[in-house]
Amino acid sequence: MIRVGIIGAASILGEVLIRHLSTHPSVTLQMLISETQKGKSVTELYPSLEHIYKGKFVDYDPSKLIETCDLVFIAKQHGEFLQQTAELIQSAGTKIKAIDLSADFRLKDPLLYPIWYNFSHPVPELLHSAVYGLSELYKSEIKSASLVANPGCYPTCIILGTAPLFSEHLALGEVIADAYSGVSGAGRRPSERNMGIDTEANIIPYKVGKHQHTPEIEQSLSLLADTPVKVVFIPHVAPFKYGILATICVRLNQSLNEDELISIYEEFYSDKPYIRIYKKGKFPQIRWVEGTNFCDIGVTVDSRTNVAIIISAIDNLLKGGAGQAIQNMNIMYDIPVGRVAKF
Amino acid sequence: MIRVGIIGAASILGEVLIRHLSTHPSVTLQMLISETQKGKSVTELYPSLEHIYKGKFVDYDPSKLIETCDLVFIAKQHGEFLQQTAELIQSAGTKIKAIDLSADFRLKDPLLYPIWYNFSHPVPELLHSAVYGLSELYKSEIKSASLVANPGCYPTCIILGTAPLFSEHLALGEVIADAYSGVSGAGRRPSERNMGIDTEANIIPYKVGKHQHTPEIEQSLSLLADTPVKVVFIPHVAPFKYGILATICVRLNQSLNEDELISIYEEFYSDKPYIRIYKKGKFPQIRWVEGTNFCDIGVTVDSRTNVAIIISAIDNLLKGGAGQAIQNMNIMYDIPVGRVAKF
Amino acid sequence: MIRVGIIGAASILGEVLIRHLSTHPSVTLQMLISETQKGKSVTELYPSLEHIYKGKFVDYDPSKLIETCDLVFIAKQHGEFLQQTAELIQSAGTKIKAIDLSADFRLKDPLLYPIWYNFSHPVPELLHSAVYGLSELYKSEIKSASLVANPGCYPTCIILGTAPLFSEHLALGEVIADAYSGVSGAGRRPSERNMGIDTEANIIPYKVGKHQHTPEIEQSLSLLADTPVKVVFIPHVAPFKYGILATICVRLNQSLNEDELISIYEEFYSDKPYIRIYKKGKFPQIRWVEGTNFCDIGVTVDSRTNVAIIISAIDNLLKGGAGQAIQNMNIMYDIPVGRVAKF
Amino acid sequence: MIRVGIIGAASILGEVLIRHLSTHPSVTLQMLISETQKGKSVTELYPSLEHIYKGKFVDYDPSKLIETCDLVFIAKQHGEFLQQTAELIQSAGTKIKAIDLSADFRLKDPLLYPIWYNFSHPVPELLHSAVYGLSELYKSEIKSASLVANPGCYPTCIILGTAPLFSEHLALGEVIADAYSGVSGAGRRPSERNMGIDTEANIIPYKVGKHQHTPEIEQSLSLLADTPVKVVFIPHVAPFKYGILATICVRLNQSLNEDELISIYEEFYSDKPYIRIYKKGKFPQIRWVEGTNFCDIGVTVDSRTNVAIIISAIDNLLKGGAGQAIQNMNIMYDIPVGRVAKF
Repeated sequence: MIRVGIIGAASILGEVLIRHLSTHPSVTLQMLISETQKGKSVTELYPSLEHIYKGKFVDYDPSKLIETCDLVFIAKQHGEFLQQTAELIQSAGTKIKAIDLSADFRLKDPLLYPIWYNFSHPVPELLHSAVYGLSELYKSEIKSASLVANPGCYPTCIILGTAPLFSEHLALGEVIADAYSGVSGAGRRPSERNMGIDTEANIIPYKVGKHQHTPEIEQSLSLLADTPVKVVFIPHVAPFKYGILATICVRLNQSLNEDELISIYEEFYSDKPYIRIYKKGKFPQIRWVEGTNFCDIGVTVDSRTNVAIIISAIDNLLKGGAGQAIQNMNIMYDIPVGRVAKF
Repeated sequence: MIRVGIIGAASILGEVLIRHLSTHPSVTLQMLISETQKGKSVTELYPSLEHIYKGKFVDYDPSKLIETCDLVFIAKQHGEFLQQTAELIQSAGTKIKAIDLSADFRLKDPLLYPIWYNFSHPVPELLHSAVYGLSELYKSEIKSASLVANPGCYPTCIILGTAPLFSEHLALGEVIADAYSGVSGAGRRPSERNMGIDTEANIIPYKVGKHQHTPEIEQSLSLLADTPVKVVFIPHVAPFKYGILATICVRLNQSLNEDELISIYEEFYSDKPYIRIYKKGKFPQIRWVEGTNFCDIGVTVDSRTNVAIIISAIDNLLKGGAGQAIQNMNIMYDIPVGRVAKF
Repeated sequence: MIRVGIIGAASILGEVLIRHLSTHPSVTLQMLISETQKGKSVTELYPSLEHIYKGKFVDYDPSKLIETCDLVFIAKQHGEFLQQTAELIQSAGTKIKAIDLSADFRLKDPLLYPIWYNFSHPVPELLHSAVYGLSELYKSEIKSASLVANPGCYPTCIILGTAPLFSEHLALGEVIADAYSGVSGAGRRPSERNMGIDTEANIIPYKVGKHQHTPEIEQSLSLLADTPVKVVFIPHVAPFKYGILATICVRLNQSLNEDELISIYEEFYSDKPYIRIYKKGKFPQIRWVEGTNFCDIGVTVDSRTNVAIIISAIDNLLKGGAGQAIQNMNIMYDIPVGRVAKF
Repeated sequence: MIRVGIIGAASILGEVLIRHLSTHPSVTLQMLISETQKGKSVTELYPSLEHIYKGKFVDYDPSKLIETCDLVFIAKQHGEFLQQTAELIQSAGTKIKAIDLSADFRLKDPLLYPIWYNFSHPVPELLHSAVYGLSELYKSEIKSASLVANPGCYPTCIILGTAPLFSEHLALGEVIADAYSGVSGAGRRPSERNMGIDTEANIIPYKVGKHQHTPEIEQSLSLLADTPVKVVFIPHVAPFKYGILATICVRLNQSLNEDELISIYEEFYSDKPYIRIYKKGKFPQIRWVEGTNFCDIGVTVDSRTNVAIIISAIDNLLKGGAGQAIQNMNIMYDIPVGRVAKF
């Protein structure tokens, strides 16, 4: 059994991690760390876990964590726990592995942090040892990683949706990506993007062309394409709890029809159980991925303009967060995908 | 033209008051008072008022208010402005009239305040001069009032829904009232009842049997019935922005069939333009009242138990708040109801 | 392995049965019967099952069904398949067991069918051999049943919510039950209760005091109470996909406080893994039961009127349909509840 | 008073027309024509109009229509009433004016009808006399028109959102337009795009790159640009009742910053009361336009790619349908815009 700790266990992602790890056959939930909720029982905060999981939130104690856990999931806001994570990794050595769900170790270039995240990265050397945890693209690196930088929700959806085009060098270097996220994406700190009075029956565009996930998407696609790729990225909040749907346009650098495009995607993802390529004329919807770890992708070509249209959808908290984190754990510990869609 | 001021103009109810009063043919909006937003233009807070209303929020200045306004709407949380309202009324004399949308002057018995609102009422004598502003029931009192206590949203819906039964002494003294309110009812201060992540696709029962509107409903129905009436009142939040639907059960003290019951309601409300009684077998829905000042009522009898079932619906911010306040203003200033549903 | 067939496999409940049974460790899905979709692959209708389940819908062939299956789930509208079910049972003898999710075998008194369902029951003798499948109340009867009449969604929620009171003879004989169901409850045949334009941001009361589930609730509660119990039942459609929340009022026949009431419920359901009794001051919400087989119950007493208020919630398609059907299968085949909330 | 008739008065757009025209100070509603609802009172279908409008639906009788009405609104599905509209216009001569809300007279090139609408246009000569009713762009033509082809909902939103760029020749000839429509856009005929079970908490992409509004958008933008413009148009259904939000990307042909772009838009629409240009860093949302005739537009530039990002929003049934039709009537009859947002 893998002995698991969760830092930030009372966050939205923390709750999803507890729910899925508490019924994972290879896992023992050892420490649920939350500074704000310490001492409280998990079910007091989450009645949905009553009769499923018993346990309490505890305070952060790094030496006890290192001693009692093999793996720690870190589910904090970006920048919030970076310093402690670095110290934990340093003092733990090989005694503990970490999967960090924040953006703190996702970007390879430390200079991007002040621009997009408003802080200077204090331990740039860790950026290179950290493995970017997009499970389908970096499986072998994840297998041997000791620090996994779990991808952002939007990047997971958009990178998986366009990776075949850029890997196969079929697209020109610019992506236009509109994405629609459920309200859970804005977390629990009150803002105009997660108050019911604002989000009900509404669509809220935000950080238009300025979202901090932009460089994360560009970094991955540029690596795949072996040439710089730019992304015009426009996120919106839409009135549902869970899920992201991205509608993406990319100009092809050669003429391809719909059938050819679908074949390219099917082949690229042929052995990936969590990626589902849609048949001709069919496109993903939020409801088909909600509550699952799938990334669903539908593609077509606007033949009049030779623009590829890709629609890609995930559950933002699962494949876009806690689900992919558990998928990465399964890769790290050689746990086979059994019945798909159950981690 | 009636020169109008609004205290708490940046609240949810304040916004609705501005929207409707800024296009009211007999009104000049003179002062929009908000301590938190003073100096800011109204459209910065409410883009929906762009091209409709120009103006700024200002600080509270009672002598200027008295000097420049004929009527003031007070849209603050209960208890929050009580003392200032009392002082304003005292110093204004007959120079200004007030419509208070909070609960501060609704209950006649001062002893109920510590029980249901957790404060001792500082000016109990004002409770008796204040007129309870349920427009359909107290029109002549409202006409000559200088301080109107505008009813709560739930009480408006439930009292109007049961007034014919109690006025006509047809019901036994107990009401079971389930009510479902949109998220706007919980205002803008973040809580588990107005965060999108909690309210989306959910129903949230709260203050079960303990809501502070209970004595307000009981006060009105007891007066109508001339005997004490008790209410078991169970409020819930439901996933829409605006509206309240109440499902109410009352045991009849005599045998009445559906047709007879509908006739009693139709007669009771025969000259009330904002009350609509549904035909046999038809019942109100949120969508038919949203954005209007109507109270829609449908009734039937469960003949097997002789229980009258009443379904009553309003827009919580209009007939349940700002709309009824404007209706009361119209009564006070003898402004005729023109085309119904336009104030 | 239990060889399972599903009749009406393309219905809303059929889809949920396929989803959960296809990953059930003791089940082989043998025949998915749908007259309207025969020949079509399951994933063409339900993209959400892609990578999870492969198979096609087939036509109804009773002898082949009897030959190849041990158990059949019947997920048809009431009255629609009654005659065929009766014939199937007759010709199958002990070769096949059936769990019927319709109302066709739920009522013991055949005279209730013409009143509430508009048809005369053609095989009243089967009504007595059928076992009413409310898992928590009739476990031993279900264990040995060959025909299980799976309960309705509203009755499951309301009977479980009030059973302790009537079993313990603590309540007077009348229940007032308001219930709010998600749009999936209205199935796929278009009506004013399941068209998005009608259901979005709305509440729709329907069949007020006249819903066909009324006698099913009364039958169970009367049996538990050993005296006739009447129910005033008012169903509504609310704007979410899955779930039912019922708010129920019952007058107590003795004085009980909140703590005592909660204890009675906790004891009554002490060994029932799928029933969760809420702590004092806490009440169920749709979101805590959505996607689970739990029935969550919160109770309090309005001490001023001695009315017990019970709030009870389930997922209408799981505990209120397919989930309870699988729970009954597990009982019939002695499959232990492993990790709760996974069937 | 303008004597008005409505053909298709029981459709979704018909209801909105009745609601707004019944309170329009210059209009008498003369004939409400509906073949499916003839004889029924309007309030039986629309309880929301009770106490507002009394009247019945009647059968279509062209000579009576010509005799008693000055203006007719036609709110039918495309192709459905084309032949009768042509005959009506022919026999009416100058006696009646028509505003057709369908697509039947929007495209100038008759060859586009078989490609995008699957029918050959029977009266291509009428395509040239019909005036395309985008109020802000063709006011003087609308003023003297006898047949107005009222624009589609998506085209209104997307053309208004990009007209300044193409009129001022600032953009290269290709538009990528993602648009999100409320469920009312799919009308009342049941489909996967308007059933609550499909639309709740979901996003549904449809007719990806193939929607029939594509040539309508291209026709207008090409005329403005004086050169062919192509549109990659991707419509989706989103979970709210009313509204369209379009997120549009266009590559600029010169370097412009955000401030410059906003100024261009403000100047272009400086005297248009129903167009609101947002301040820097602000973007439209569905809620700010719902229930109004406004088109709200926010713009920015992604300076890294020189792509202009435009977000444009309307109420699909008002500015995108019935509202713009009434705006056109006001233009035709020289009715001044009084208090904006009231027609």
